Amino acid sequence: MSLFDVIAMDADDTLWHNEHIYRQGRIVLIRLLAQYGSPEAIYARLFQIETQNLVHFGYGLKSFTLSMIETAVEFSKGRISGDDIQELIEQNKKMVASEVELVDHVIETVSQLSTKYPLMLITKGDLFEQENKITRSGLGHFFKFIEVVSEKNSETYRHLLEHYSIEPRRFLMVGNSTRSDILPILELGGHAVYIPYPTTWQHENAELPPPNRAGYFKIENISLLPDLLRQLENSGMD
Amino acid sequence: MSLFDVIAMDADDTLWHNEHIYRQGRIVLIRLLAQYGSPEAIYARLFQIETQNLVHFGYGLKSFTLSMIETAVEFSKGRISGDDIQELIEQNKKMVASEVELVDHVIETVSQLSTKYPLMLITKGDLFEQENKITRSGLGHFFKFIEVVSEKNSETYRHLLEHYSIEPRRFLMVGNSTRSDILPILELGGHAVYIPYPTTWQHENAELPPPNRAGYFKIENISLLPDLLRQLENSGMD
Repeated sequence: MSLFDVIAMDADDTLWHNEHIYRQGRIVLIRLLAQYGSPEAIYARLFQIETQNLVHFGYGLKSFTLSMIETAVEFSKGRISGDDIQELIEQNKKMVASEVELVDHVIETVSQLSTKYPLMLITKGDLFEQENKITRSGLGHFFKFIEVVSEKNSETYRHLLEHYSIEPRRFLMVGNSTRSDILPILELGGHAVYIPYPTTWQHENAELPPPNRAGYFKIENISLLPDLLRQLENSGMD
Repeated sequence: MSLFDVIAMDADDTLWHNEHIYRQGRIVLIRLLAQYGSPEAIYARLFQIETQNLVHFGYGLKSFTLSMIETAVEFSKGRISGDDIQELIEQNKKMVASEVELVDHVIETVSQLSTKYPLMLITKGDLFEQENKITRSGLGHFFKFIEVVSEKNSETYRHLLEHYSIEPRRFLMVGNSTRSDILPILELGGHAVYIPYPTTWQHENAELPPPNRAGYFKIENISLLPDLLRQLENSGMD
């Protein structure tokens, strides 16, 4: 018998590149506000406003765009033009329609693992956007279960595990966000594999667990996941 | 044995009032654009832009606010001020935080039915917003299953029914939108109860089925639902 009932994976910046799409938006904002402040100051204020707005708007591109518009109005002291505001909205539409670019080795790894484990995709954010990306990624059929959630904390995961009747210790989550994919899983007594992503959004960074923390593993890229799983299964772990 | 495995209900403008929140937004927009056009013209253009933007943004308040901003920029030929744009964003935050006002008779009806049937809440729109409303409505615990979907068409419902292993003819859906709650269910061979809402959003109106269409029922308010179900169960229906 396998050690795990389900292997779960994050999507944004784990299965496909996502952060660069937001970066394109920030570049447009910085260009539009060039006369009002430095790129660093604009970026820092945008991040503050995004963080404050999470409670009003949640995650995702529409939320991001509203925060960009709010930053533009504030930074320009209301002098931003209607056309510039419209450019931010058009930028949002482009971002929504951006090609879904898979991270290297994702297809072969996911395809291989799907023959051995039931896979679950757990992604946080805007339902409409995430469903679109799942469809366009072409990866949907590898995943037996797909869950879009509005926040990834230990409560969300506990609820999901209960819903699927999975014991935490028989659950393994893979992702690039220490805050969303790793720490809440370890808190519940599950297993978590951290795959760093070079430009993970600032909000998702939390302190890493110590390397010897029970249930915690780190690999450099997703192609190393099948080997890690094989080692765990062979060792009987625990 | 009961005729139905599940009684499913729409939420916005079926369980709680929703459309008036959007109306408040439209009133602000019409005030801000008063010098540029008539309320009717502004409303009509907003509806066009909202409809066009569904494919980019999906449903929900953030999508609505982006469409309001787009309408404001276009209608004012770019002359809308930054402060006015910011007012639309602040209006969005107010709308998100609006009190959830239940429709008359909802609590007693849902409470009563939940002792007899497994209830499912199926709501379309923004995951973050809908989860917030479900929590604040205090109704969540009456529903055995809660599903937030990005669109309500026959494909969505077919998928849901498969997921829960429910035969369409043993499924009954209750809602105020002919387009989203009634027609797709009848198409699948399920049962649908239409409860008109005085100000249903224009987008949700589709032609009503003929009154004698198999599986289709109409009641004036939700307090009549238990009686209708009793009649159906007693008649053995079909």
